[in-house]
Amino acid sequence: MIGAIGRFAGALTILACAAYARPAQAEDGYDLWLRYRPLPQLQRKAATVSAITVLRESPTLRVAAEELERGFSGLSGHEVGRQDTIPADSVVLAIARTPEVAALALPVAALNEEGYLVRPVTLGGRRVTLVTGKTDRGVLYGAFALLRWAQTGHAVRTATFSSSPATKLRLLDHWDNLDGTVERGYAGQSLWDWWTLPDFRDPRYTDYARANASIGINGTVLNNVNAKADSLTAPYIAKAAALADVFRPYGIKVYLSARFSAPIELGGLKTADPLDPQVAAWWRAKADELYRAIPDFGGFLVKANSEGQPGPQDYKRSHADGANMLAAALAPHGGVVMWRAFVYAQENAEDRAKQAYDDFKPLDGKFAPNVIVQVKNGAIDFQPREPFHPLFGAMPRTPLMLEFQITKEYLGQATHLAYLGPQFEETLRSDTLADGPGSTVARVVAGTGDALTGMAGVANIGRSRDWSGSTFNQSNWYAFGRFAWDPQASSADVAREWAAMTFGPDPAIVAPITKMMAGSREAVVDYMTPLGLAHLMATAHHYGPGPWISDLKRPEWNPYYYHRADKDGIGVERGPGGTNATSQYAPALARSLADPATTPDATLLWFHRVPWTYRLKSGKPLWQAMVADYDRGVAYVDDMRRTWASVRPAIDGERFAKTAAFLDIQQREALWWRDASLAYWMSVNGLPLPPGAAPPAHDLAWYKAQSFPYAPGNP
Amino acid sequence: MIGAIGRFAGALTILACAAYARPAQAEDGYDLWLRYRPLPQLQRKAATVSAITVLRESPTLRVAAEELERGFSGLSGHEVGRQDTIPADSVVLAIARTPEVAALALPVAALNEEGYLVRPVTLGGRRVTLVTGKTDRGVLYGAFALLRWAQTGHAVRTATFSSSPATKLRLLDHWDNLDGTVERGYAGQSLWDWWTLPDFRDPRYTDYARANASIGINGTVLNNVNAKADSLTAPYIAKAAALADVFRPYGIKVYLSARFSAPIELGGLKTADPLDPQVAAWWRAKADELYRAIPDFGGFLVKANSEGQPGPQDYKRSHADGANMLAAALAPHGGVVMWRAFVYAQENAEDRAKQAYDDFKPLDGKFAPNVIVQVKNGAIDFQPREPFHPLFGAMPRTPLMLEFQITKEYLGQATHLAYLGPQFEETLRSDTLADGPGSTVARVVAGTGDALTGMAGVANIGRSRDWSGSTFNQSNWYAFGRFAWDPQASSADVAREWAAMTFGPDPAIVAPITKMMAGSREAVVDYMTPLGLAHLMATAHHYGPGPWISDLKRPEWNPYYYHRADKDGIGVERGPGGTNATSQYAPALARSLADPATTPDATLLWFHRVPWTYRLKSGKPLWQAMVADYDRGVAYVDDMRRTWASVRPAIDGERFAKTAAFLDIQQREALWWRDASLAYWMSVNGLPLPPGAAPPAHDLAWYKAQSFPYAPGNP
Repeated sequence: MIGAIGRFAGALTILACAAYARPAQAEDGYDLWLRYRPLPQLQRKAATVSAITVLRESPTLRVAAEELERGFSGLSGHEVGRQDTIPADSVVLAIARTPEVAALALPVAALNEEGYLVRPVTLGGRRVTLVTGKTDRGVLYGAFALLRWAQTGHAVRTATFSSSPATKLRLLDHWDNLDGTVERGYAGQSLWDWWTLPDFRDPRYTDYARANASIGINGTVLNNVNAKADSLTAPYIAKAAALADVFRPYGIKVYLSARFSAPIELGGLKTADPLDPQVAAWWRAKADELYRAIPDFGGFLVKANSEGQPGPQDYKRSHADGANMLAAALAPHGGVVMWRAFVYAQENAEDRAKQAYDDFKPLDGKFAPNVIVQVKNGAIDFQPREPFHPLFGAMPRTPLMLEFQITKEYLGQATHLAYLGPQFEETLRSDTLADGPGSTVARVVAGTGDALTGMAGVANIGRSRDWSGSTFNQSNWYAFGRFAWDPQASSADVAREWAAMTFGPDPAIVAPITKMMAGSREAVVDYMTPLGLAHLMATAHHYGPGPWISDLKRPEWNPYYYHRADKDGIGVERGPGGTNATSQYAPALARSLADPATTPDATLLWFHRVPWTYRLKSGKPLWQAMVADYDRGVAYVDDMRRTWASVRPAIDGERFAKTAAFLDIQQREALWWRDASLAYWMSVNGLPLPPGAAPPAHDLAWYKAQSFPYAPGNP
Repeated sequence: MIGAIGRFAGALTILACAAYARPAQAEDGYDLWLRYRPLPQLQRKAATVSAITVLRESPTLRVAAEELERGFSGLSGHEVGRQDTIPADSVVLAIARTPEVAALALPVAALNEEGYLVRPVTLGGRRVTLVTGKTDRGVLYGAFALLRWAQTGHAVRTATFSSSPATKLRLLDHWDNLDGTVERGYAGQSLWDWWTLPDFRDPRYTDYARANASIGINGTVLNNVNAKADSLTAPYIAKAAALADVFRPYGIKVYLSARFSAPIELGGLKTADPLDPQVAAWWRAKADELYRAIPDFGGFLVKANSEGQPGPQDYKRSHADGANMLAAALAPHGGVVMWRAFVYAQENAEDRAKQAYDDFKPLDGKFAPNVIVQVKNGAIDFQPREPFHPLFGAMPRTPLMLEFQITKEYLGQATHLAYLGPQFEETLRSDTLADGPGSTVARVVAGTGDALTGMAGVANIGRSRDWSGSTFNQSNWYAFGRFAWDPQASSADVAREWAAMTFGPDPAIVAPITKMMAGSREAVVDYMTPLGLAHLMATAHHYGPGPWISDLKRPEWNPYYYHRADKDGIGVERGPGGTNATSQYAPALARSLADPATTPDATLLWFHRVPWTYRLKSGKPLWQAMVADYDRGVAYVDDMRRTWASVRPAIDGERFAKTAAFLDIQQREALWWRDASLAYWMSVNGLPLPPGAAPPAHDLAWYKAQSFPYAPGNP
């Protein structure tokens, strides 16, 4: 009878919670992929565990246990608590050298320091699920892996897996300013409320740490690479220290972007010359101060001598001189320097795509061991599609950290649905051929031996209730973490995981949603920058089309610089007959890229200037293919809208409505991109549209007249 | 048996919801005073209603019913739904002319168009609680009043009350910019996501409307009085129209701040001269365009010829010329112009406190009937304490709209706890003596006959999860609405209501919390600007003390302008021997304010310059009294911290912790204000501290050196 009442009560419970829960709070996206709603009946039983037990608690094991309590309580619909004993069907958390675990002689030797192993074992005579690793951080990652396993519909008692991250530094770079704005941020203000720190520790900081730990991110650069020196003053160090305290149990270190001229601005020195002993002493003292406040401070990220930032070249020193001086200040404390290779200079008339390689390739092997050079995925700037950066494979004696942009500065910002998994995968699977076939970017990033390795993502996180400005933008944060952990990951698998965790594991929901996601980034390429075009966005805010812009002071500020279209053709010739940027790739690759005929259609106009009538590998003439690409991109968005409408019954009202509204915006804007681009190309090439193609809705003057003075994210 | 299971299930339901609810979502302040958590057992029963019934549904009655469903379900812990029949113990919503209600012959004649009447009646033979009014907006306000009644612990079946608002326009003024920043905003970005409007209608917009309707606010000015013309362009009108659609059922009209030079900036005219026929025609066309998009558009708020804003005086026309021209454009559609009297001019050497009166008093009776002149509570600018503005009572033939600042620009911004109810009350109860004793500001604001009346509050609302940056800042939004509805309200009663709705009706919680609130604004006066001092805040951001500042270009930008302290004395002489600002008040009041001996201590230094040894009515010499005030202010904050700590067991963790952290900040900053101020006054007057007073923690140079380049809210 009690059982019957219990079941009846349980059913009522769920009903009642649903009835009283405010829709605005119930599903507003705040929970991210850590959603922990009751699973469908079939899987719910398989996600039921009796308790959580921790052997030899630490702050990190405690938060891991709390996450499991929260997660399994939610997924199973039954409260799961901590126990000190080890009941049957419980989950046990313990590091591998705990005697009870060591006695099991599990294959933990293959794990690295952050790896985990999950499997059914017998402890104290009871069958339990053990989550272990060499460190408590490993156990934490294992706990999240076990939750993911359950969230994606698998039975807890079958959980048998292990994994170790392929990279050491898995970081988010926040381009957050001290005034609360976020450069290229489309999800509201900075998550860091600098004004009320260190006193007030917003619970969001903890939830941020949980989300990051769940995907293996272990570091966060708090402030914009276009840094203010103030972030290195005592009050701001105290604020950063408060965040570090919140993040520490989650295995997340705090890093800061360092302004290279800080010794002048804060220290009153006359120079920031890295070889000046006073400068070096100032940075050593600053590092000491930082480590007194934050004993596990991660280190510095530096943007130097790029886009107006100060740097060692101001004193005729090299990037290595600058990086190594900072590295020497951090080395006694175990800190690292992440030195950005994103450099191009006003004075340099060389092809912008070549400048980073030109500056850095000669420095290979000259950096201190605690320096890692941070290289963007492509040689220009986070475009919808770029070929991989030629520095990958070209600096075998220098650790390279791959930098992706999770925030979609050039891919429709907040409102366009573009899953970046395929972009990450495309870069990582690119073969540099630097050390023979199979020398993929993923392998370069994973490194060799004890050298530093890492991956950084420019965060898309703000104070928006749903963190990333839209539900689907959350998938890019998620995917970045999963690829940083495993550069060989599959974007399709990652999408399936994310969709199941975010919307529930029912294949009837997961299948259409992952289908939408799969081609969504390619659709953006199609309607914005097909066939290897790049950087056609309007000035400054990078929102909307502006291929006609050619009157800005610096040549590389102009979209024209990136397409060079005229009556005779379009594209930038980067082969031997042009800027010879192709020569920066490994010889075998350089040879094939030197010739349009052996250059993939997808990056043709990046590498080559060809006539409008040029025949692609598809057999189509270029102009016809371009128009078809634009139309395909627009049609894909139409498809996404239809697919989204079809899953309406399975999605909560609030998240459904927001995505639906954003898809409406995207549909209108995809068409705008297509029409504005075609209106411009036609004004240049004088060609008619292929039969059946719709003419642009307005004339070119109309598109040129559009103005967006309040576009977000514009520094 | 079913009954028993039902009870058991009910108990489980509550437990289960509590257990699975994420603390971060459960009590993060988002619910404001519409919290609807289950009442204590005793009151819960009395808040149980059987159903909600609507007679003759309209969009407004529908949202009223939804609110009652939500509210009574939450308060009673039992789901309450809509019914088409009228069951016993239900709540019935209907306007008074509905035949069933008209048949009851209730005393609705005394209500105005927005008033409500709630009482137990018999309908269809059943005892029900009827909520009625002449319009559906009245019924909506009555529904919220009934919820308030229950939330504060009263039995629904005893609900017998009626009320009508004393003012016609009860508005929030948002100083929100189109780029998402908020001038003097301390609660995050603008609530309006202009970028995704009109497509995306954030559910927050609806919750904003609910909160406002619950306190009787019936209009909102969406954009900053320092306005951009862009807000009057077609895309932004469409965005405003989307918000108007959301707000309409809640009885809330949308207004816009209008930039006076818009005909030049948008219309390409050469002038914005209000007497130029082309200018008038441009505004007429713009008004027509606005009303096509927003049929119930409220009208314009205008800041003209003040702090650099354009206005009619640029063309040697009067404020009346400017206002009446705009009024003529709006009149055919029923719109109003709210014309701000907050003017002071760079060229004008007259006491800043006198300039508004000088400009506007001569215009009394010259404004069109659909113009209302908006006057700040005091003559300077929203200081912790100001005597009431001399324009109140001085313009009997002109409707005056009282403007308060809810956002605490000068009262500690986000982090200081200062309940403004006593400030509102103090201004409203001030007797202008303009029409004999009892001519209070409240009576001036309530107006006479059919003339426009109104009250405006500069909003403290942003995208912060708790809307206003802190839980207690919510009380100021609440109190503003309650005082706008009833300028005779009691700040203590309003505080009790708010505290009961926000934290639960248990007197053991309400009593200490209202005790904290009661003196909190006076504490800010004490530690920032005692005895009638004003505007001693640091430059631009108005955060922290800067009484020493005297080197800014315009005299009235300098705190020195507001205190004139030297060895011999302190204060601004505004009596007949000084600027004679006292003469702007009604003769009887002017006479008493002319003499320090008959001027209240609380505003002494506002009206008079006196020696440091001057004896106050309390008998204390000025300097000793000042030090005592500073110390009392600091001590009050200490008391608040202790009181808050004492209610910890009764407050949820998240809201408790945030307020506790903010009280820590306030305690440190109250001491900073006291110490910095004393260090400066002592440097000026050379006097020792009274015996027992603690010396400042630092020397004056230290206080002067504090700098806050990233303070929020600074335009």
